[in-house]
Amino acid sequence: MYIGIDLGGTNIAVGLVDNKGNIVAHASTPTLRERSWTEIVKDMAVLTNKVTASAGKNLADIKVVGIGIPGNIDNEHGVVVRAANLNMENVPLAAEFRKYIDIPVCLENDANAAAFGEYFAQDPRRDNFLMVTLGTGVGGGIVIKGKIFRGFNGAGGEIGHHVVHLNGEKCACGRCGCYETYASVTALINQTKKKMRECPDSMMHKWVEIHGEVSGFTAFDCASKGDKAALEVRDTYITYVAEGIVNLINIFQPEIVVIGGGISCEGDVILKPIREFVAKYEFNKTEPRTQIVTAKLFNDAGIVGAAMAAKKQKFL
Amino acid sequence: MYIGIDLGGTNIAVGLVDNKGNIVAHASTPTLRERSWTEIVKDMAVLTNKVTASAGKNLADIKVVGIGIPGNIDNEHGVVVRAANLNMENVPLAAEFRKYIDIPVCLENDANAAAFGEYFAQDPRRDNFLMVTLGTGVGGGIVIKGKIFRGFNGAGGEIGHHVVHLNGEKCACGRCGCYETYASVTALINQTKKKMRECPDSMMHKWVEIHGEVSGFTAFDCASKGDKAALEVRDTYITYVAEGIVNLINIFQPEIVVIGGGISCEGDVILKPIREFVAKYEFNKTEPRTQIVTAKLFNDAGIVGAAMAAKKQKFL
Repeated sequence: MYIGIDLGGTNIAVGLVDNKGNIVAHASTPTLRERSWTEIVKDMAVLTNKVTASAGKNLADIKVVGIGIPGNIDNEHGVVVRAANLNMENVPLAAEFRKYIDIPVCLENDANAAAFGEYFAQDPRRDNFLMVTLGTGVGGGIVIKGKIFRGFNGAGGEIGHHVVHLNGEKCACGRCGCYETYASVTALINQTKKKMRECPDSMMHKWVEIHGEVSGFTAFDCASKGDKAALEVRDTYITYVAEGIVNLINIFQPEIVVIGGGISCEGDVILKPIREFVAKYEFNKTEPRTQIVTAKLFNDAGIVGAAMAAKKQKFL
Repeated sequence: MYIGIDLGGTNIAVGLVDNKGNIVAHASTPTLRERSWTEIVKDMAVLTNKVTASAGKNLADIKVVGIGIPGNIDNEHGVVVRAANLNMENVPLAAEFRKYIDIPVCLENDANAAAFGEYFAQDPRRDNFLMVTLGTGVGGGIVIKGKIFRGFNGAGGEIGHHVVHLNGEKCACGRCGCYETYASVTALINQTKKKMRECPDSMMHKWVEIHGEVSGFTAFDCASKGDKAALEVRDTYITYVAEGIVNLINIFQPEIVVIGGGISCEGDVILKPIREFVAKYEFNKTEPRTQIVTAKLFNDAGIVGAAMAAKKQKFL
């Protein structure tokens, strides 16, 4: 058995994970990120004991603990180099955890961990894998020959920060026109608001009256009911997403691309046009070609991925 | 010793390469690509015998033959799947070569071979490596952990075909705004011609009178003499090149990026502004960071890379 921990800015989620990547037991607690990191680590250990006991197991059954962290990590030394949202800098997290529970610990960046979980859930034999997560930003994870790809310094895989439109929308990273300024849910919301201002008769205004505020679903919901302005927003947004996916396929030729994030619930509504776009515009025109699917794991990906990445790294 | 063969649309170049990647003997002949592929393979064997003899060696000293080919290859079966410029389709090239000289043969895509040669010439210990070749198009090669990265189907690494400007310049691949439509020498020539039409007083017109036609050096030469229009062309072009390099660094975080192609002769004129741009706009702001240099091998990269890739593949 393995422990997977998804340390987020809001919650600490801990799962006991079996050899096949199933979560056997699960527990979580608020992160309360303003407190000391030692308190957070203590809670991680408490939850680890709790899930192990709740499944009728004991710590001797745990081979390794994997922890996904929203920041840069130095896995070799078990150190969180920097996790801005958690106010951590050069924190010896693995050593601290082992003061409570002396089991090998593997740290992983949280986006990489989630991608690895999804890779495992899809089909580990398809080991050139790319995940594109459409959320507040555009995150991702790259698996090459079954291993998380991080670049030489651990900072690779920032697929949301490749410019797709020179001098385009301003990005938080300091550049203009990054993929995430067109394809994130934040971008979709901005695109929706802009179109609503242009089209005061659009059904989207009524949608917002009912739902309270514009979300990533405003345009998709109204488009499904035939609203012209919403259809334009949805189709343009899907094209933006697809352009970036073709970029990444031309570079990586992964066997599988997984689209994650809330919007992936739309299923065929986004998959079908993206697949058509890729088939038409991909540079490679010969078989075999990349398969494009939506994510399977959603919120569990971080736990499963942290556990399975730790398992793989320790060859257990 | 190893044989490296660079099979181009114009010339067949063959080199005898030592263990350190030095070319000990070299010979070439026109490809004459209209003729049968069996004739081309025969010439490859003739040249192999010639360079071996000219260095005072014999075929028993050759461990493996590496051949770089401008097309898709199936190295496992020694087959050229498709090389449009050479009119080859499903050609059993390795088997044909071994009819003349029975030594193991490794096929490689020519851009990958050239990148691998350059990787070897720079520093094989820095084994996360990216090459960006600015030529008629923008080619590239990716080395990850000392191995050429090709994606799951061998068609990966098309870094010139990632869109950097949505709905931008028309690309031969069918998309609009690909990196190579902004950063190739072809693009630079178009950018130069456009500026010359706008600026009839630019020094670039006199340059063309002397040199016969606009080339990739027109703007660079006149910019170095202070011509304002030429400076604008050069600086904008360098920014385009740099934008794509930042994109690739954010994704790959290679230890080293090598800029190849004729324009790389400009050295610090392009390196300095690209390094400054990357330092400012790269997503990762912590050390260690990617180093950016110009290519060392130029025309020999294909021969050296084909030989060294074959050596690596056969573990010799």
